[in-house]
Amino acid sequence: MPLEQLGYVGGRLDRADHIRMNPDQAAQALASPGARCLVLDGLDPVTQDGHLLMEPVATDASLDDHLLLGLDDEQRPVFVRLAQEVGSNFFPSPRSRAIVTEIPADEVALYGAARSLVHWHGRHPFCSVCGSRTSPEKAGWARRCGACNAEHFPRVDPVVIMLAEHEGRVLVGRQHSWPEGFYSALAGFVEPGETIEEAVMREIKEEAGVTVHAVRYVMSQPWPFPSSLMIACIGQANDDALKLDETEIQHAFWCDAAGVRAALAGKADAPFTAPPPMAVAHHLLKHWADAQVAPPGPSA
Amino acid sequence: MPLEQLGYVGGRLDRADHIRMNPDQAAQALASPGARCLVLDGLDPVTQDGHLLMEPVATDASLDDHLLLGLDDEQRPVFVRLAQEVGSNFFPSPRSRAIVTEIPADEVALYGAARSLVHWHGRHPFCSVCGSRTSPEKAGWARRCGACNAEHFPRVDPVVIMLAEHEGRVLVGRQHSWPEGFYSALAGFVEPGETIEEAVMREIKEEAGVTVHAVRYVMSQPWPFPSSLMIACIGQANDDALKLDETEIQHAFWCDAAGVRAALAGKADAPFTAPPPMAVAHHLLKHWADAQVAPPGPSA
Repeated sequence: MPLEQLGYVGGRLDRADHIRMNPDQAAQALASPGARCLVLDGLDPVTQDGHLLMEPVATDASLDDHLLLGLDDEQRPVFVRLAQEVGSNFFPSPRSRAIVTEIPADEVALYGAARSLVHWHGRHPFCSVCGSRTSPEKAGWARRCGACNAEHFPRVDPVVIMLAEHEGRVLVGRQHSWPEGFYSALAGFVEPGETIEEAVMREIKEEAGVTVHAVRYVMSQPWPFPSSLMIACIGQANDDALKLDETEIQHAFWCDAAGVRAALAGKADAPFTAPPPMAVAHHLLKHWADAQVAPPGPSA
Repeated sequence: MPLEQLGYVGGRLDRADHIRMNPDQAAQALASPGARCLVLDGLDPVTQDGHLLMEPVATDASLDDHLLLGLDDEQRPVFVRLAQEVGSNFFPSPRSRAIVTEIPADEVALYGAARSLVHWHGRHPFCSVCGSRTSPEKAGWARRCGACNAEHFPRVDPVVIMLAEHEGRVLVGRQHSWPEGFYSALAGFVEPGETIEEAVMREIKEEAGVTVHAVRYVMSQPWPFPSSLMIACIGQANDDALKLDETEIQHAFWCDAAGVRAALAGKADAPFTAPPPMAVAHHLLKHWADAQVAPPGPSA
């Protein structure tokens, strides 16, 4: 995938909801001669010749452990096999990070969807309502409890990731565990009972002590570690005073557009190391910097 | 709350994340003389004199079944008591709908947050990973498994709700179960592995056979039945041909701005009955209609 492109975005499969909802059609899809199965190594991707590795579906395959990812451009069903043990695995592995530059963008997105779904199934063999066993249904897009009949659906966890903006500068921060010099946009999960905009205001206040208003949405990205929906926003800060939550944020500072541009370009004298293009924070910073008045060039 | 206002938005409590994260502070908050407990009747709100009913926290109250909703304007902690049995209760009751016009907007939002959280706890006494018992921690903002130690967090399910737009008209549709004449924006859950914009495109294609592009975000709303985050968008339709998924959508049609305005105003001769202002679909329709060129008045 092109180096500059946002990761896990641009899936091309037809998710074929009508097949999922019909057990007979789902079984036919699994048994069809063109059906293929995405190969994973645990939760990691497996590639071959610059593509995700796919294999024919085994003749004894069952919908008990196969999830229909969708139909490809030639209407061939693509499945992924569900795993019994996935561990916690909430963070990307080196292998899952590496593929973003090795395979086409739509395949990165396909891997991301598969990873989230396989992870979710692996963490949900039991019913949260009654503690009994659950099993997949709807071609892997739900699980049902064999005892209390409760239906459970894959999670998607909305996360706000945002820049506070103040007089031509934006706030970037870093967590204690990050590599030295690495800064990004602040982020946090949207909680029950709040809008996207309210979540942005709460998180920036909690983490940096900054009050923002006039929050605007910029873009979104699925982040499959394990199943976030990143919602990128910019808010106007009332002032530039910082009061960091030092358990979460090790350091934060206001950076001007020249500094952000230098960081995105990976310059040695940049004021910080920016997230790579696979991450939405990179594009959020770029979106902001592109909208600032460009500094006069040498000949201006 | 004012009749024209979006529901469940505008909560005023400080969610006080730092107290949740510290068991000693959470216990102190529960024991503090000013602490109050939001009263629910099952999952329904209870009101008195135009406000949500709050009671002092019982002297023997425990964090095993009390969740810290936050601190009020006077820094007094507000809790809600967790319930053992909540049933499925995925839809609003008449009582939960009625309060939106009876109490201030911020209290409607507080009720919404409380309902989502109490519902989630009631549906998660067991660990989805191993089937053992879980118990609340972080002042009710998580549950932990006593056997495998897995941590579980309240769900927020992102939902896209959207209008397709084509040559001055927008698409409204109705489900089979809705009251006669009632139409709204189409909607569906965001799935793992897709952006907000991709979810909008997929859902409109699935439900109405319409291909949209240039999707733009308009606004969001928490919808506490049981815990959705409604993400309202508008997309440009490539054409106006419809191919309805008749299992989901009973009827849909393209409506011009005059028709939308008449519906929002509740006029008797309007082409459809619109959702009430508590619902984000109402404001999405209004946002779209307000942006259309107004028809010439009698004196124009």
